[in-house]
Amino acid sequence: MCVAKKILFVVLDGAADRPTVDTATPLMAAKIPFLNQLAQQGILGIMDVIAPGTPPGSDTAHLSLLGYTPKEVYTGRGPFEAAGVGIDVQPGDIAFRGNFATVKDGVVIDRRAGRINDTHKLSDAIREQLYLDCEFLFKESVGHRAVLVLRGADLSPNITQTDPQHKGRILHSKPKSNDASSRRTANIVNDFTRQVCSILGDHPVNRERTLANQLRANAVLLRGAGSVPHLVPFERRTGLNAAVIAATALVIGIGKLTGMKYIPTKGATGHVDSNIEGKVKNVNKALKQHEFVLNIKGADEAGHDGDFNAKTHFLTRVDAALSDLAIDESTLVIITADHTTPVSLKEHSGDPVPFLINGKGVRVDQTNAFNEYIAASGGMNRICGRDMMPVLTDLLGKGTKFGA
Amino acid sequence: MCVAKKILFVVLDGAADRPTVDTATPLMAAKIPFLNQLAQQGILGIMDVIAPGTPPGSDTAHLSLLGYTPKEVYTGRGPFEAAGVGIDVQPGDIAFRGNFATVKDGVVIDRRAGRINDTHKLSDAIREQLYLDCEFLFKESVGHRAVLVLRGADLSPNITQTDPQHKGRILHSKPKSNDASSRRTANIVNDFTRQVCSILGDHPVNRERTLANQLRANAVLLRGAGSVPHLVPFERRTGLNAAVIAATALVIGIGKLTGMKYIPTKGATGHVDSNIEGKVKNVNKALKQHEFVLNIKGADEAGHDGDFNAKTHFLTRVDAALSDLAIDESTLVIITADHTTPVSLKEHSGDPVPFLINGKGVRVDQTNAFNEYIAASGGMNRICGRDMMPVLTDLLGKGTKFGA
Repeated sequence: MCVAKKILFVVLDGAADRPTVDTATPLMAAKIPFLNQLAQQGILGIMDVIAPGTPPGSDTAHLSLLGYTPKEVYTGRGPFEAAGVGIDVQPGDIAFRGNFATVKDGVVIDRRAGRINDTHKLSDAIREQLYLDCEFLFKESVGHRAVLVLRGADLSPNITQTDPQHKGRILHSKPKSNDASSRRTANIVNDFTRQVCSILGDHPVNRERTLANQLRANAVLLRGAGSVPHLVPFERRTGLNAAVIAATALVIGIGKLTGMKYIPTKGATGHVDSNIEGKVKNVNKALKQHEFVLNIKGADEAGHDGDFNAKTHFLTRVDAALSDLAIDESTLVIITADHTTPVSLKEHSGDPVPFLINGKGVRVDQTNAFNEYIAASGGMNRICGRDMMPVLTDLLGKGTKFGA
Repeated sequence: MCVAKKILFVVLDGAADRPTVDTATPLMAAKIPFLNQLAQQGILGIMDVIAPGTPPGSDTAHLSLLGYTPKEVYTGRGPFEAAGVGIDVQPGDIAFRGNFATVKDGVVIDRRAGRINDTHKLSDAIREQLYLDCEFLFKESVGHRAVLVLRGADLSPNITQTDPQHKGRILHSKPKSNDASSRRTANIVNDFTRQVCSILGDHPVNRERTLANQLRANAVLLRGAGSVPHLVPFERRTGLNAAVIAATALVIGIGKLTGMKYIPTKGATGHVDSNIEGKVKNVNKALKQHEFVLNIKGADEAGHDGDFNAKTHFLTRVDAALSDLAIDESTLVIITADHTTPVSLKEHSGDPVPFLINGKGVRVDQTNAFNEYIAASGGMNRICGRDMMPVLTDLLGKGTKFGA
């Protein structure tokens, strides 16, 4: 066998960083002997997931890493979240991310309704009693989160959101352009807001919450509107039968919308408490049936919290879990991050991320550790996120030749 | 003199590789003291001739290295082959690559007519007896190869080829779109196929071949249809008076279509048995009269054969021949490959190729050998093939300033 047959693509969500404690990054401070060994036997480089200096969103980052061009296919986060929570969205649907919130006299006083945990009864009521001027699908997600999908002709994502993002008056959606579809969609969204407030206002769950001194979940704020894009299935683009192992609705949704099989893992949360050992077991199983396995591990939360030690500790845990990977010479392993989340910034940044490729056919370079600094001297130099999938499929001997 | 005046651009066809024997590549295993010396006194880098992970064809690769954008100007290999065998093609002509083949009861039983060597009598018969509904030019090339050019209004390259690529029924050309030009061209091509079978079927050459127990060359299969592109002459783009020294019709054709002078070399075959010493003498002569000399050396064949030792040996021979180059400080030398052809893959791959630039003005780096690994740590880092010519003309002090 002269080339690998399968790809294991591991994304350490937000793992990359800027120098922080004693000029080290969490990847440098963490104990990651397994990743360092992969680096020593592989080739490293740095990658601009979107473009130099452009902080990627998690959505655009994953699209880019999977070989799609976000500028062409990205319309908003809503469609991916909706697919991720299990709605069978169709191209052309208009999808929104939603928050159950607490509203008093038309003013949002808590955007997460006191971080309400179980909203399924409230969602049932919305599904049963809401009547909109188009087909719709509404589904609760983790915690205070939900998604709304509008379906039918003459709809447009070109409207303003109702979520004020901070405390303040709930927003009235307006069309962003003066066409009939946008005006109609804004009207439907405003109708949604009014009816939901009415349906939830006197709901038994909220009466109980008032008695228990909890904030009422009496409104749903919408944001991230997007038209579900036509995505050429990943398998048709690459010839690889693919599976996704992830915890967050967003990444699951990207996997589903690109035609990958989603393999759920019990206890996978996408947070630092995630069951990463369970995910690794699932990866080992998935590699027996699929030619491409996408696996996400979240270190992003610690970055957003600005917690250097938590991020370092999580990366140490990830390395220990990954060392149980059952990979042989039939598998090409790629380890990278979807973006840099400096603990000093608590937000995504546009710094390049490190990556390593390990497996048959790679030009093994002199690097011997996996981190932002060493990767910058690796044999792959610097590439774009969009180029990663062509590089990997080419290593499998399946590159798309241009010319003769 | 503060800048070089001339460029010698040497392309080692398919020379780059992946790690193979003891993790070495043929460039690492070969004895190449001359190239290593050029590297030590020059600057190195790696190059994505088309794009990361995209295996280049030899045609698109050379266009890109000469500064053209293949996605804009490449229409198919036919036009370059036709120009290369000496047909004076004109923009808008539809050109095809052809194979003399053996057909029995309409089924191709040998795509190369038993690797027939001399087809000039058969080609004479085709030129004399063929009548098509448009002007045409037909010419034999090396071995079983030939080219067909259709000329006139209302023609289109948007048709399917007649070459089945493998044994099997000779294909009927169909228009790929439903416009009159495509339908008409497909009809002409099918008419060509019918008439050629009739003209060659009873030709004396084939009667002789039958008596000698050789396969008959009684059909011509067509592929690689392309409309001859409008290429801005190389000299107008770069200000450099250019010559090409190569053996294969394809590269000679690219040179001719971009307005370079073609300097033939006796015994140059484009294969590992090529007269590379003769080519080097021609290069030395050409550098006295031209500001840009493109010189191609084939190591590609050995890569396609998967023969590590043959490739290594050929590169050793190339190095020895190149050491007779008469280059002084007026000449900038660039050494690279048009693509990687891993012996492990026997096909072009999308791995970056190494390159070196030696001459006045380059920022000499710490590298001291010419191969895929060392080049990745070179001072040029990683560039695109399309950027090479601007880099070189800029080193001559002839860069095209943008802005004031």
